[in-house]
Amino acid sequence: MPTGVRIDVTPARIHSLTFNMDGLIPAIVQDHETREVLMMAWMNAESLHLTFDQGRMVYWSRSRRELWRKGDTSGDRQFVREAYYDCDSDCLLFVVEQEGAGACHTGERSCFYRSFGDGELVEAAPA
Amino acid sequence: MPTGVRIDVTPARIHSLTFNMDGLIPAIVQDHETREVLMMAWMNAESLHLTFDQGRMVYWSRSRRELWRKGDTSGDRQFVREAYYDCDSDCLLFVVEQEGAGACHTGERSCFYRSFGDGELVEAAPA
Repeated sequence: MPTGVRIDVTPARIHSLTFNMDGLIPAIVQDHETREVLMMAWMNAESLHLTFDQGRMVYWSRSRRELWRKGDTSGDRQFVREAYYDCDSDCLLFVVEQEGAGACHTGERSCFYRSFGDGELVEAAPA
Repeated sequence: MPTGVRIDVTPARIHSLTFNMDGLIPAIVQDHETREVLMMAWMNAESLHLTFDQGRMVYWSRSRRELWRKGDTSGDRQFVREAYYDCDSDCLLFVVEQEGAGACHTGERSCFYRSFGDGELVEAAPA
């Protein structure tokens, strides 16, 4: 059975983060082995507390307006390995063990499965 | 001199993305070699067009309310190598070559240089 890391974080520490006007903060999720970026989702203070407490990713679903314990329906749970916050304290980064097929509701491993084309390698514009 | 990838994207394609009520979309930035997540910042349609056109990361600064050509002041430019959008078309992922010391204004390589503690490895909560 996969294991997650339980992280002891005080409510004061959670509330020292900068949440937006809707009380949310973005969380980037990265695979612990491949370092692939799997998804980005939003958390409120409660879902962040639950994530730290349970060692499993719990988000706030903006569309359903409810807590979203990732994988409860799909089985594709995400177990916390590392957790970071950025220089402005307004964005989070979680390194996780992804269970099952992947993070994306489409069945893809990463939500970022579509690219903007192959591009053309050119000299970067000066200055 | 580092080079970036110029990507041909039509204005219609850019406007098919989901921008928030402020006309912005979050962009996650990952190092092309180490796959380290360097930062997250916001783009509007214009900064996204400029990023694709110049092969360099151009953001929208929410605090200064102006276009932010990353590295123009610091010298720490970011050159585009790959660009992705997520399943909901409301988040972007750029894989870049980071010039100079790093992405963060503090001098750190990544903005996510602070973690939420070492944690304690426990069995994940059942179900």
